[in-house]
Amino acid sequence: MHTVSLHGITAARQIVYNYIKPTPLRYYHELSDKFGFEAYIKHENHLPTRSFKVRGGINFMSNLSAAHKKSGVVTATRGNHGQSIAYAAAQFGVKATVVVPLGNNPEKNTAMQAFGAEVIEYGDDFDEARELCTSLQDEQGLYYIHPCMEPGLVNGVGTYSLEIFEELPNVDTIIVPIGGGSGICGAITVAKAINPKVNIIGVQAENAPAIYRSWKVGKRVETKTCDTIADGLATRVPFPLPFSIIKEGVHDIILVSEEALQEAILLALRYTHNLGEGAGVAALAAAVKISDRLKGQNVVMIMSGGNIDVNTLKKILMHS
Amino acid sequence: MHTVSLHGITAARQIVYNYIKPTPLRYYHELSDKFGFEAYIKHENHLPTRSFKVRGGINFMSNLSAAHKKSGVVTATRGNHGQSIAYAAAQFGVKATVVVPLGNNPEKNTAMQAFGAEVIEYGDDFDEARELCTSLQDEQGLYYIHPCMEPGLVNGVGTYSLEIFEELPNVDTIIVPIGGGSGICGAITVAKAINPKVNIIGVQAENAPAIYRSWKVGKRVETKTCDTIADGLATRVPFPLPFSIIKEGVHDIILVSEEALQEAILLALRYTHNLGEGAGVAALAAAVKISDRLKGQNVVMIMSGGNIDVNTLKKILMHS
Repeated sequence: MHTVSLHGITAARQIVYNYIKPTPLRYYHELSDKFGFEAYIKHENHLPTRSFKVRGGINFMSNLSAAHKKSGVVTATRGNHGQSIAYAAAQFGVKATVVVPLGNNPEKNTAMQAFGAEVIEYGDDFDEARELCTSLQDEQGLYYIHPCMEPGLVNGVGTYSLEIFEELPNVDTIIVPIGGGSGICGAITVAKAINPKVNIIGVQAENAPAIYRSWKVGKRVETKTCDTIADGLATRVPFPLPFSIIKEGVHDIILVSEEALQEAILLALRYTHNLGEGAGVAALAAAVKISDRLKGQNVVMIMSGGNIDVNTLKKILMHS
Repeated sequence: MHTVSLHGITAARQIVYNYIKPTPLRYYHELSDKFGFEAYIKHENHLPTRSFKVRGGINFMSNLSAAHKKSGVVTATRGNHGQSIAYAAAQFGVKATVVVPLGNNPEKNTAMQAFGAEVIEYGDDFDEARELCTSLQDEQGLYYIHPCMEPGLVNGVGTYSLEIFEELPNVDTIIVPIGGGSGICGAITVAKAINPKVNIIGVQAENAPAIYRSWKVGKRVETKTCDTIADGLATRVPFPLPFSIIKEGVHDIILVSEEALQEAILLALRYTHNLGEGAGVAALAAAVKISDRLKGQNVVMIMSGGNIDVNTLKKILMHS
């Protein structure tokens, strides 16, 4: 499937479900009472890599040509995309090389290595790490899996949105964190096809608002920095594929502060007893921020990942 | 089903699966490399009440007589059993009263209330709280669900052990935390019927060793205190139903220190990115303690629950 479409997402399901099961969509009484909307969380943190990205990795790898399965793949990541590729590559017997920025979270690096990937540290951030991929592609003949430009990744992660529409047909709003943008592109594509009345709301960090700004002005603009505890949201460069879908289909994008993200990590611990990473609780932070608007609605918040490291968690709890 | 049996556990599945899905059994590379056995965790913390107990509550409530469904039920708990009964009662439209000891974890109390249960604080510990149940049974005609003496509860929770044998037929050892004992009774019953060569190892806290001591001397002995951070293990009084099964079927019971439990909470955070409560990581703590003995084995550790409160988590992280 070379485009993002309901067809591509539907086709991805049978592939993805060979490796993972649908994730729980949980209703939380206490959050609902507290914030005045019907609070549902889609627990993508329950997946084997503790992140929604694995759905994309599996779908992509399954469709990779035999020649590239043999040559191997390379990609860049802050962690969750890389774990997804490492996990999926292991399932299909493909050699994976993953480039991470210097000083990347060591827990994420060792997790990728544990799935069998070679991890290389390069560059100051995700966008610099990407540059090395192009060289490795040329030098070693690896297939470069661009984290934001592969329809197969978007179609794979789109399967969680299908699960939502099936389990909660009367959903009013779905709130999705935006890093590269694959998650929300899946949600937009599914909602358009099944029920265009559903609001698809994106979330970015105030400190990493590249796609928010691009959406506001109608063309792709980069930011100079992306310094947020939500490493899954820490991107500076919007890419054409996700941006074209977001621009046409998103109903709103909410920016959340670092404080709000930290508070949402605590809310998730207290009321859901789930470990959410920064990006994983960004939807909850956004819902809290716009709770007046959501009053009485069935709201699904995507807990996109749970890979927060112990030191970050410790710092957040110590300041609580 | 009025006895604990493979028949009862098998029959419980169709009932339980109307409300929940099988939980993931995950292999953890990094824990395996670190401790020298093949480390699998059964994620009962992914259930709707974040604890295995809900399987028992659903099975029990489904089989409750119409008259008692009408009169309502009462039980005593430190939290997870009560959440299970509150959740199951809500599904079947039954009024639930739950007695907790004075000063019980407020997060657990509000979680039970959120499922619709009436929560009453009484007595200094779980065993004193139980005493009020008998009075309420007599005064208000409620059905008293004894937390440790109902075969329907044990058969319900036994369903997780069936899932393990199906998903990992070559399991060597299953390690199960023991509070009241329902979880390990399910594991013993299933292992005896399917593959008696599988080692079933229990875990108790050094500070709450009632069943360990009883098992050592061959008859039920109580302890005076049960002061452990693992409130799911905090029982002083062994009961005839679970003890009769444990006495005949358990291969070993390991005691773990408070320090080991705290360390295991951190290990679970770091290597599984799951939030485990004290009892939920007790199996991991025990496996670490006896890792020499487990070398090379396929070891399943039951992460029985994830309902640790934020303050306890904070204290543990601050001392790490």
